[in-house]
Amino acid sequence: MAHTGIHSQPVRSCLLLVVVSVWVQQVDGVWPLPQQLDQSADRNSLSPQRFSFIYGRDSAAQTGCSVLDAAFKRYFSIIFPDFTKGSGLLMSENKSIRYTSVSSVTTVSPQPFVVSVSVKTRGCDGYPDEDSDESYNLSVSEGQAVLRSVTVWGALRGLESFSQLVYQDDYGSYFINKTEIVDFPRFAFRGLLLDTSRHYLPLHAILKTLDAMAYSKFNVFHWHIVDDPSFPYQSRTFPDLSNKGAFHPFTHVYTQSDVMRVIEHARMRGIRVVPEFDSPGHTLSWGKGQPNLLTPCYKGDVPSGSFGPVDPTVDTTYKFMESLLKEVKFVFPDSYVHLGGDEVSFACWQSNPNVRTFMEKMGFGKDFTKLESFYMERTSIVWQDVFDYRERIPQDTVLEIWKGETYQAELSRMTQAGHRVLLSAPWYINHISYGQDWRNSYAVQPQNFSGTEEQKKLVIGGEVAMWGEYVDATNLNPRLWPRACAAAERLWSDEEKTLDADLAFPRLEKFRCELLRRGIQAEPLFVGHCKHEYDGL
Amino acid sequence: MAHTGIHSQPVRSCLLLVVVSVWVQQVDGVWPLPQQLDQSADRNSLSPQRFSFIYGRDSAAQTGCSVLDAAFKRYFSIIFPDFTKGSGLLMSENKSIRYTSVSSVTTVSPQPFVVSVSVKTRGCDGYPDEDSDESYNLSVSEGQAVLRSVTVWGALRGLESFSQLVYQDDYGSYFINKTEIVDFPRFAFRGLLLDTSRHYLPLHAILKTLDAMAYSKFNVFHWHIVDDPSFPYQSRTFPDLSNKGAFHPFTHVYTQSDVMRVIEHARMRGIRVVPEFDSPGHTLSWGKGQPNLLTPCYKGDVPSGSFGPVDPTVDTTYKFMESLLKEVKFVFPDSYVHLGGDEVSFACWQSNPNVRTFMEKMGFGKDFTKLESFYMERTSIVWQDVFDYRERIPQDTVLEIWKGETYQAELSRMTQAGHRVLLSAPWYINHISYGQDWRNSYAVQPQNFSGTEEQKKLVIGGEVAMWGEYVDATNLNPRLWPRACAAAERLWSDEEKTLDADLAFPRLEKFRCELLRRGIQAEPLFVGHCKHEYDGL
Repeated sequence: MAHTGIHSQPVRSCLLLVVVSVWVQQVDGVWPLPQQLDQSADRNSLSPQRFSFIYGRDSAAQTGCSVLDAAFKRYFSIIFPDFTKGSGLLMSENKSIRYTSVSSVTTVSPQPFVVSVSVKTRGCDGYPDEDSDESYNLSVSEGQAVLRSVTVWGALRGLESFSQLVYQDDYGSYFINKTEIVDFPRFAFRGLLLDTSRHYLPLHAILKTLDAMAYSKFNVFHWHIVDDPSFPYQSRTFPDLSNKGAFHPFTHVYTQSDVMRVIEHARMRGIRVVPEFDSPGHTLSWGKGQPNLLTPCYKGDVPSGSFGPVDPTVDTTYKFMESLLKEVKFVFPDSYVHLGGDEVSFACWQSNPNVRTFMEKMGFGKDFTKLESFYMERTSIVWQDVFDYRERIPQDTVLEIWKGETYQAELSRMTQAGHRVLLSAPWYINHISYGQDWRNSYAVQPQNFSGTEEQKKLVIGGEVAMWGEYVDATNLNPRLWPRACAAAERLWSDEEKTLDADLAFPRLEKFRCELLRRGIQAEPLFVGHCKHEYDGL
Repeated sequence: MAHTGIHSQPVRSCLLLVVVSVWVQQVDGVWPLPQQLDQSADRNSLSPQRFSFIYGRDSAAQTGCSVLDAAFKRYFSIIFPDFTKGSGLLMSENKSIRYTSVSSVTTVSPQPFVVSVSVKTRGCDGYPDEDSDESYNLSVSEGQAVLRSVTVWGALRGLESFSQLVYQDDYGSYFINKTEIVDFPRFAFRGLLLDTSRHYLPLHAILKTLDAMAYSKFNVFHWHIVDDPSFPYQSRTFPDLSNKGAFHPFTHVYTQSDVMRVIEHARMRGIRVVPEFDSPGHTLSWGKGQPNLLTPCYKGDVPSGSFGPVDPTVDTTYKFMESLLKEVKFVFPDSYVHLGGDEVSFACWQSNPNVRTFMEKMGFGKDFTKLESFYMERTSIVWQDVFDYRERIPQDTVLEIWKGETYQAELSRMTQAGHRVLLSAPWYINHISYGQDWRNSYAVQPQNFSGTEEQKKLVIGGEVAMWGEYVDATNLNPRLWPRACAAAERLWSDEEKTLDADLAFPRLEKFRCELLRRGIQAEPLFVGHCKHEYDGL
């Protein structure tokens, strides 16, 4: 083998030269597709030793801006992984020589390249929110790139796009083509839900997910943190909730410090953290640490020993919920708290004589939806069930649509009632099937329902949901990536330019290889290989 | 939180004591279910410091037996992971005290425990084959276990079962219950196919798969090493096959040394390695490094530029195949070589004027199955297609059934013709779906077809196939495990005792946690948790 290798060397080197001269002119894409992208075949050579991010003179943020300082450091490593892993110096030396031999010019030292970042408003210490402006303009020309945005969050999106524009040739040399990008998101809410109740996800799995979310420009982490099976959130006010309701009180919990780390890791990437404390259903695990919270179910005249939803008939419930939510609003800075409200089983309520008495007293008759309505009173996201039950809910409550079959009709109904809505139904990616099911995302048109232009504006975005029945740290990443990337593109990019999954395929294949290179365990789309395969086993 | 933790400590300690006294009597299962298993609630305490494997006096194998010496070392670490990770000494000291406090006897130093292993025939340096006796008897009593088998391969199966019998209580103390096992496999061939052509799998992914296979008592690794997309096998005789046919000639190949490592790693675990060099179809990648091997397809009177199956009309083809297979038979010690023979496209053959002339000369008329028959002449496993084409094939060729819909009928037909068969059709586990699809394995009855008792004996086993269209190192392990375990049980255990997936569920859940503890990235069956979660991220 070595013998043959030597013999065939001259031939293969020649082949490489030909390939290179084609390849270096190749224009790489950006995922998700920017609103406007113009690229030329002219390219800059980049050297990690003469590359820098700087703040523009007119930028409101300057050195000391926590979000952007950290982003500069992070993206330097993402763009030049060889350099930061220690082999960069050697490669860099070889590179200038090789570059010379290919392009047939005399040896030159590498040219400097400067990325100048300017933001209009500072806000380096704040949190992204639903009104954050994420637009940016990026102009890559000779020896420099200029990135301009209104906010630091927009600058993050631009840095991500910049990082994806850089590519390496077969000698390891880095290049970026001259490029003009004008970009902004189609939807303001581009969420991803993780469920940490059905299975516990270790902290590093959540942090890694936030990394990958930023690569696809997701901007909301919907943390379905507690549910029936377990209560891993370690509450300051009610520590017994996790002491008794978590799978294990020390190994399977999120401490306050863990939660802080998630929120800060997300903030650094321009990602909001919307916690969900789903009630009055989905609360079995709550009952273990909070006696008398749940409704005792009855069999005939006697308690059956099992428990139903939160008991909405007693004052202690509301006092408890008020305290818990006060803590949640304090711990999680986002203006949204998702209060669930889905899949409430009325059978247990109905079986309970105290609940029936309460219903009579309140004049609800037999209509248990009125009882749930009575319970659900808060400005927040709720699952669509709350609206389905025709409850009177505040106008500024966001409704999230999760029932698959009828989502167009729901969009129409809810927006007609003036509610903002969030579409999740077509993006339950815990549902797996054989083959390229990411293509389904390209058929989803969140604003394609019968309604006025005003109604369509009420669709604030969508959310990929990875429910946890069959998912934990062993299979989370390959199930999420790159399948979720398809939804991310549809939520960010121009719908007309991204209708065709066949056109998206080669771009997504390339982006998936880039995810591998960044250490994300993203599964393959189809037969083939990546230059840098996953080596995290 | 810490505050509350201290307050509740006394209460929780008491609770633990109660739990322990129940828990230590719990009888753990063995996966796959042994043919006979009798367990008592009497238990031995095991101390890693006073635990040993020894060879029985009457054993044909003694110290120096490569397979068993390595297995003793390996299983010690599997049984006592804390000890080998360095914290064992401390735990062991604490343990005897704690043990005392639970059982209320005076402090004693740990009792020795000896596992005595006796084999009838030596064979420590050989390879497992289709006739290997894998039966074993295991008797665990006070202070000792006696493991008896005919071969070292049977001893490996017994050691695996022994390792699964050991459990830890909540203090970390190790126990094993008194147990009698008489065990042997239902089928001699219990295979698992990996496809390293559609995606390259790094060596360590293959070795890890072999580890997990041994835990489920799989005994054949069917290595579908090359196919249309790539030729990663680095041949001594024809190095250009991988130089030009692999995804990359250095990063995406299996060197001779890699292949040796796979074979030896497998041998140490009693696993055969059956390589597949599929032809005359599925050979596109071969053509890159071996000119004139493939049939040029024609469009009308001129070559179209594309290539079809191997060209069976020219002598050079047979000389090449003879040389390659001679090498393969030399490199791979197993008596089986899988020669594929499936999905041959006759359209290209038909388009080629030379092939048509050859057909005429040979008197095959228009029947291209005769041409394939002419090509396929070798004692080996082939895919069922070869039989479907009514070819005359040697009686000792094993046929593998992969077409899903009609496998009972195929079993009947093929065994009636006197062929040994291998069932793979119901175990294409690259096909995924939402939910607990492992349950389907429990409905598969490989001998449930119309035929005589003699015919049923011709079913030599089955094979789980993980085809690589959508699978590489990023998602291989969670897709394989624990889904493949279900097939493993059905191929090893008594069919009557393992018909009920509901009964298997809690045992498989426990076994899946054990796989996690051993570092296998096995996905969850359903909502819940393991004491030792996967931490390999």
